[in-house]
Formats: sequence, C-alpha cells, structure tokens
Amino acid sequence: MSLTDVIAVARGELPVDLLLANARLVNVLSGEIHHADVAIHDGRVVGLGAYQARQVVDLGGRYLCPGFIDAHVHLESSMVQPAEFARAVMPHGTTTVICDPHEIANVLGMDGVRYILKASRRLYLSVYVMAPSCVPATGMETSGAELSAREIAKLLRAGRVLGLAEMMNYPGVLDRVPEVLAKLDAAAGLPIDGHAPGLSGKDLNAYFAAGIHSDHECTDLDEAREKLRLGMHIFIREGTTARNLQALLPLVTPANARFCHFCTDDRHPETLLSEGHIDDLVRKAIAWGLDPVLAIQMATLNTAQYFGLSDKGAIAPGCAADLVVLDDLATVRVAQVYAAGLRVAEEGYFLPVTSVTRVPLRPTVHVDASAVDLTIPPGQGLARVIGVIPGQVVTEHLRMAATIREGRVVADPDRDLLKMAVVERHRGTGNVGLGLVKGMGLRRGAIASSVAHDSHNLVVIGANDDDMRAAIAAIARMEGGQVAVVDGQVCAACPLPIAGLMSDRALEEVSAQAAALTKAARALGCTLVDPLMTMSFLALPVIPALKLTDKGLVDVNAFAVVPLFGG
Amino acid sequence: MSLTDVIAVARGELPVDLLLANARLVNVLSGEIHHADVAIHDGRVVGLGAYQARQVVDLGGRYLCPGFIDAHVHLESSMVQPAEFARAVMPHGTTTVICDPHEIANVLGMDGVRYILKASRRLYLSVYVMAPSCVPATGMETSGAELSAREIAKLLRAGRVLGLAEMMNYPGVLDRVPEVLAKLDAAAGLPIDGHAPGLSGKDLNAYFAAGIHSDHECTDLDEAREKLRLGMHIFIREGTTARNLQALLPLVTPANARFCHFCTDDRHPETLLSEGHIDDLVRKAIAWGLDPVLAIQMATLNTAQYFGLSDKGAIAPGCAADLVVLDDLATVRVAQVYAAGLRVAEEGYFLPVTSVTRVPLRPTVHVDASAVDLTIPPGQGLARVIGVIPGQVVTEHLRMAATIREGRVVADPDRDLLKMAVVERHRGTGNVGLGLVKGMGLRRGAIASSVAHDSHNLVVIGANDDDMRAAIAAIARMEGGQVAVVDGQVCAACPLPIAGLMSDRALEEVSAQAAALTKAARALGCTLVDPLMTMSFLALPVIPALKLTDKGLVDVNAFAVVPLFGG
Repeated sequence: MSLTDVIAVARGELPVDLLLANARLVNVLSGEIHHADVAIHDGRVVGLGAYQARQVVDLGGRYLCPGFIDAHVHLESSMVQPAEFARAVMPHGTTTVICDPHEIANVLGMDGVRYILKASRRLYLSVYVMAPSCVPATGMETSGAELSAREIAKLLRAGRVLGLAEMMNYPGVLDRVPEVLAKLDAAAGLPIDGHAPGLSGKDLNAYFAAGIHSDHECTDLDEAREKLRLGMHIFIREGTTARNLQALLPLVTPANARFCHFCTDDRHPETLLSEGHIDDLVRKAIAWGLDPVLAIQMATLNTAQYFGLSDKGAIAPGCAADLVVLDDLATVRVAQVYAAGLRVAEEGYFLPVTSVTRVPLRPTVHVDASAVDLTIPPGQGLARVIGVIPGQVVTEHLRMAATIREGRVVADPDRDLLKMAVVERHRGTGNVGLGLVKGMGLRRGAIASSVAHDSHNLVVIGANDDDMRAAIAAIARMEGGQVAVVDGQVCAACPLPIAGLMSDRALEEVSAQAAALTKAARALGCTLVDPLMTMSFLALPVIPALKLTDKGLVDVNAFAVVPLFGG
Repeated sequence: MSLTDVIAVARGELPVDLLLANARLVNVLSGEIHHADVAIHDGRVVGLGAYQARQVVDLGGRYLCPGFIDAHVHLESSMVQPAEFARAVMPHGTTTVICDPHEIANVLGMDGVRYILKASRRLYLSVYVMAPSCVPATGMETSGAELSAREIAKLLRAGRVLGLAEMMNYPGVLDRVPEVLAKLDAAAGLPIDGHAPGLSGKDLNAYFAAGIHSDHECTDLDEAREKLRLGMHIFIREGTTARNLQALLPLVTPANARFCHFCTDDRHPETLLSEGHIDDLVRKAIAWGLDPVLAIQMATLNTAQYFGLSDKGAIAPGCAADLVVLDDLATVRVAQVYAAGLRVAEEGYFLPVTSVTRVPLRPTVHVDASAVDLTIPPGQGLARVIGVIPGQVVTEHLRMAATIREGRVVADPDRDLLKMAVVERHRGTGNVGLGLVKGMGLRRGAIASSVAHDSHNLVVIGANDDDMRAAIAAIARMEGGQVAVVDGQVCAACPLPIAGLMSDRALEEVSAQAAALTKAARALGCTLVDPLMTMSFLALPVIPALKLTDKGLVDVNAFAVVPLFGG
C-alpha cells in the first residue's frame, strides 16, 4: 500500500479486509492485556478500534498476541525442508524465524545458503537468514565448502539476510585473526550473533566490543548475568538437547527483559511434534513464574527489535499482521495463527496447501564404499578411545588396550569397544579417519549418518567391518541419510537427500524413520536415548575431549590431531 | 580505534586511559545496581573489571550512570548559543540532546539549521538534529523561510541529522497533503517525531501508520495510554511552561518503560539555572515513586535506542564514555560528568574552557520603524479582542467595544485594553497585523519581542503608539531581542542578535536581562508571571482561540483570518 492508502484505510475511509473483534490483546508495547478490536488490511495491522470490515472474526475474548519469533535456529536440525518446517512450527504460533544455515553451508557453501533463501520464499513463515560466520568450523576436518569474508559481505547484501550468525570462533576474535575480523567488519552495524560458552571477564569485554551482541550458549545464571551486564542479548535456548530455560529464567526481570529472547537452536522432528516450538518456551516460562506479558515480549517484540525488524513483533498500525490467538495464558494453547493477515493454522492444523519450491542441488555424497579401507593396523601401547557420556556432547578421552585379531585392530562388542570411521564425503578425497569408541553398546551391526557436526562427513560406528561398509554404501546410494545395518542388510533408514542433512518427506514420516532407526539401534544393543544424534557429535572437533574427523583423532583440549596409539 | 586495537585494549593487553573504580553502577542494561570498575580508553568504555590504567579515579561507591539524553529540545528556547547551552546543561548530567531547530529554521531556513549544526561542533555535548518538518508552521503568517520536502531530504543526508522533527501538521498528514507526505517519505525508515495533542482513535492509528512513532504533547494519562498502546514512544515533557511529568508518570511500568522517555522541549534560561535539565526530570520521577533504574533508563538507554544511537545511553564496551556520577539516587545530585571520557563538569561547574564557534549569519530584522503605521481605523460594532488567560498559551476570543479617540482605535489602559502589533521582520514586506488585547495589564509604555512562535515576527503590545514605535525601533537597532519601553526610553532590554532568537551572551546574563524585563513590565503595570513569554504565544496561530499575525487576526478555531470588527 502507498502511504496515501495506508492513511486512508487507517482512518476508516474504506472497509478493511478483516477485523479480529473482541480480543483480549496481549499488548507487548504498553505491557498490558486489554480488550481490543484489531483491523487488518492488505496483510498489515491498520489500527485498533471498531472498523468496517469485509470479514469479521469474533475472538470471543480469547488472547491475541503477535506471532512468535525464533531468535536463532538451525533449520536443518528439523531434518525437513523449509516448507515442511513451516508446516510444523506455524500451528505452534511461530510466524518468523531467524535461521543460521550453518549446517548446509558447511556442505554446500553459498549454494546451501541460497537453497535456504529460495526454499523459504512464499511459505507464510517469514524466514530471515544470518550469514554463517564459521564455515568451516575448524581446519581439523574437511568440510564441503568455505565461506570467505568476501562471500559473507556479498551475502549480507541479499534480501532477508540480517547479519552475521553466531561467531563460534571466539579464539579467532580474541587473537585478531585477520579473516575473522574481516567478517566482523563486513557486518559492522548489523546484528552479529555470538556463541561464547563460558567466556568471561576481559575476554568477554573484548568479544562484546568487537560488535558481537548476543549469545545463546549460556547454561549458567552467573554466566548469563555477566553477559547481560554488558548489554549482550541473551537468547535463552530450549532445543532438543540443550535446555537452558529453567536455569536462565531467574535472570529475566521487567527492567532487563528487552535484552532477553527465546530460541530453539536445534529441535529435531520428534521434539517439534511432541513439544512444539517457541510456544513451548512461552508455556514453560509462564509455568515457571514469568509474567505472561514479559514472556510474550521475549517471544516477539524483543527479538524483532534486536534484529531491526520494525514491522514484526508487535500489533501496531503498519506491522505485518502476524498474529496468534491463544485460548489462555496458562496452557498457551494456540487456537489460530495469522500470517500477513491470512489464517494459516487452526487448532493445531496448518491450513494452506503449499507446494515445495524445488531447488536443484548438486549431490553431496562422493564416497565409493568399495574403496573405503577400514583396516586399523595395531600400534604400541594403549589406544585412544572416545568415551561416550550418555546425554552429553562432550566425550571422555580414554586409554584402553585394543583388541587385535589377525594382525588388525577390530571391534570388540564384548568390551563395548566399537570401530568408528569418518569418511570424507564432500570432495572425494578418500580421507577416512579411524578410531575406537566406547559407550555406544552395539552388540552387532552398524549405524551410520551423513549428519555429523559441523562438517557433516559420513560417520559410521559398527561391531564389524562388513556392516560398516554396508552402511557406508547404503548412505552413498541414498545420497545421504542415516541407516542401521545388520548382517549386510539395511534394517532402518532415513534418507536425507538434501545435502545429506534434510529429507524431502513430511516431518511425521521423518520422525517415524528416526524412531525406527533408534529402535533398530536398540535392537542391535545400543542403550543410548538417541544413538544417531550422539554419534553425530562424535565428529565435532570443537567440543572436548576426544573426537574423530576425516583427518583423524582430535584431542580437542590440545587442539591437535593425535595418533590412535602412543603420543 | 581499529577493531584490532579495540579488542587488544578490552582484553587488557595495554593500559587504558582511565579507570573509574569502585562505582555503584546503575546498569541500565541488566536493570541492576552493582559494584563495578569501568575502564575507558580513547573516549569509549572498553569494559567492566580491574584494568591497568594510566589514571584511576576512585568513585568511593558513588553511583555511576550513562549520560542523560534530552529526547526533544528546541535549543533556541534557552536563548543562548549552543556552546552556552552545553555549559548550562552538562553540569546537570546531560551529555546528548536531540534538538529540533524549528525556531531558527523559521527565521533562517537551511542556514538556521546549518548554524545549529556548525555551532554545536566540538562542544563535549553531543548535539543531534531532527530536520524541522513544519517550516512555516502555517500559511497564515509570514515566516523567514520555508523548508521543502527536497530540502528536508538533503538535510537528512547530513551528519548528526537523525530524522524528521515533530510533525505538527497532523491535519496535513490525515488529509494526505502531497508536500507533507513527501516529507514523511523522505524520512521513511528514520525516526519521525510526532506532535499530536489530543489525537485519538482512527486518526491516531493513521498518524502512527504514516510512520510517526513518538509524541511529546501528551498532557493526559488516558491520551498517553492510547498512544502507547499503538507503540508510540511517549516523550514525557517537563519544560518551563508545559509540565507533564506528574500527570504522565503513572503510565510508566517496567513492562513498557522502554517506550517512555524524558524531554524538556522548551526550557528558558532561568529554568535551566534554577531547576536544571534532564536531572530535574529524573529527580522528580524518583521522588514521585518511579524505580530509579527505570527513571535512568528513560533518561538514557531508551532514547538512544529510539534514535538508533547504538553507542549512547549505556555503559558497555564500545559505547561512548558519556557518564554521570551521582551522589545518591534521591537528590540525583550530579557530582561529576564525563563526555567521551573527559571530565567536563564537577560539583555543578563546567570545566572545559571552550570558545564559541562563530558562524556568520545574515541580519534577520528588516523593519523600518519609522514606516510602521499603527493606526487602527474604527469599525462597526464590537471589536475582536484577544483575551489573555494567565499561565496559558490558549486565549479567549472576546468581543468588546473599542475605545475611539480622534477617529482612531486607541489603547485604553483603564479598561486593560491594549494595542498589539505583529510586524513582519523577515522579508521587509511591510506587513503589520493590528489588534487589541486584554489581560496584559500594562498601564503605560510598551513591551516588544522578536521571539514570537512560530514565525518569530516582531510583536509589540503597548499603552500608546509612541512607545510601541520606540520599542519596534529599539529591537530593529539591536537586530532582534526583547525590550520594555516607557516614555520613549528603553528601560530594559535583552538583545538577541542571533536570528532575533538567541543571545551571544552568557546564560546568567541572559537570565538577568529576562528578569529585568519582567520587572520592568511589572513596573509598567503588567501582572503576569512572564509577560514576554505570554506575548510570544499571542502570535501563534495554531493554538486557539484568537491570535494576531502579520497577516491580521486569526480565528484559530475557524482557521481563518478575520477582521477586527464585524464578520
């Protein structure tokens, strides 16, 4: 609408498209809950008051609040395409997400980011992107792509790209690595998100002074308070694994709430289905004692303001009519959702019939399974063994005697000592990292995945080499995905043909496939809650203590590749 | 400092310039008050903590808060030059002002705005400018200049110009006057301040939807609440005349305080000297029950955020080291003030020796006193008389019989019926508006002023024509100012050679001159508290009911020029 039309419509000179009448408005601006009628025209809120409208919806006194915003999410963790993600989260009241396509960028670089941008057009869900700052995350593994400061500067000029995503490389910031500073410079004046678990004192001052003004990695109240005192925006995270809401909620007071936000970071299919999305955080925050208006401000206005989204996060003339109708403020049950004035969800169901935007992507699994050599020659002394700690992404750095048969190191399920391989899949280098892992519990068979943070090489763990090879071959055939294999046969699979990270199927189907995989892994002897996810973090060389990449074993504390034996 | 240097200094790798140690930090970010040491380098805050410093100032547990910000001020109302204004307000803790040079722009147009920009360089006080939106304010008077949408667009590209100043022409917005919309368009995406006393309902929705997101004209709690509910930023004003703090303070809650701000709008010399500046609002707000942290947020962070001043309003790494040391939070007594890390005030005294930036300005009083004809011919029936209401800017529209002598309408002090003239002074048009006024109380002599909102023509009120002419001549000689005259002699004067609005003298001297003028007017019989100020509003044709401009009597309610008699 032109300014002239906006004014004419807001003055009531023409009937509006829609009037949401008789609402109990959760007014995040005035901090009140008050009765109101909300007029909507051409996708935008035009005013509060009694307007002539072509359609009137009587909300019967139900609560109306702005659509929820996820301040930081890796959309890839949903394992579905953006359209399917939208279908999953919008019935939960989410109308906007700020996503960091860090995972797909590590596989496909700029093409991966462009995929997210293209595939998230016309979804009803407003998808904004932060330019991934750390691709690759480290030099100790082979990623599918690199994003230079120059490419980031280019990305930052694209529509819907708001700023620089989580700067995980805080040592690089503090050490003034030129390429890292060039990325910060490229984003100067734009939002730059942080990722600095445990950073404190002068180093934290320096990290903040570098222009990095948010953090979603706080796990501890004191840590969050120190960051908040500098003006760092605290994105309180409640993901599938990392759950920080209860610990951090005491931080939030009315006087500082504008610096507090909700994010999910990573939510897997079954979490989205069973627990929901940002509504889950709002619900828990209220249940745990936060004032409902503050909780809804954290889920809406605060995040819109931080990211400079001046037409989101509030119900005010000129704002996008992204709205949520709640039955009450205790259950936070989402009755209706409007996006740009269109009703897109009702009673948990997504209403629009959307078609997925097909975006051609190149294959990303370049592995010749028959050429992969899983042989581990024996060595002197004790072997380094990755010790899985149930439910955590950190591991133990164990030393154990390897089991040797026919002159080779073999998996020994009786000792819960399994073989693990990370097979480079992006560039066909033939790199294979080999190691041993304890704590997975497989008695037989193998599990494998092309989801393995952050470089997403092909990771496989098995009780014997044949099944490991069969698992690698199965993933190569599927162009990515996750499998469980026993006796050479695939017994469960979740194909992830989009970059080896995301499915082209419905969320429910992916969730069922993931459940079947877990069940299969359990049948093979694994006792972990989510074996595939645990495995996906065993290749992440930025989290202690011992990890395996395609370049070999990484002693994360020493920040060095180390041999299996000795050293 | 380069990003590299910023990080190095914040990490403590080099000693900093200054450490303010042992502060009780009023942390507007975390909403707490906590002990802290604040490190400052190269004019900026670099961090909280124990830093090696070249200079350490032990604050002995006194309160440290960000420098105060005036969200909206007409600097001209101080009647002194920007350097002198800075000297007046900085000891009160003000380190930043957002000024609207509306008055001088009405006299000198772009040259007036440029004068403010130039004369406010290197003052320690950070002076930002909003482009005046309504020059001239109406077509019913002759102003010295016009600012077109094109000129405003040009201004908006200048450094330190933040957005569009108070859009007083709300009828023009609502009626979609193209030139008004062009001004709004030029400022789209920037802060656009409002001025909409009493605007409500759908018209308010439309005004907000047009992008106008603040208002400093609320006088009533319900009015302010309606505006706040739309997300309008409420600038609570406490000027010399308009005092809205007590009425509006109940609006402010912790959940909405980010939308609430402090401004002075217009403070005259004696108010600045006797009551102070933004510290006065903070003090009163706390005394009247507002939480001190919220009050200080309103005086600092909130306004910086509204205007997008990302390095102002907070004590955080990277922010300008604009700081105020307070003895306590009850008296809000300002002990020290720092601007960009330099101590600029101590115990009420401004420390730097500054020199005034001389900015050549053209003469603005183009009046040949000898050619001014004050003759009022008699007419039929009752005359329209401007009825002064003590202490108010609105007037009564009276009808009285004029006193006729020798075939002319004359002043009749016995009936408190005085003659008033508004003499066009900008363009030498020779326009003289003539009328009658009741309620000034002068028994003899005349008072005159070149300060007369909004066009600032020469306004004179007298008990006889000779003294009125002498007063006009005196102001013409002074190139602007205010005088009291009796028996042809000037008995008190305040020269205002800068655009006829501002003095080139010290604030104390101007205040003394103003006091002498009031005293002189009282000696002539006037009973009003501030006769010169009252007179300056009698020429303002946008405030009811009957006003006089150089074009004649204006019936403000009818928005029309009307004759003295009949009609």
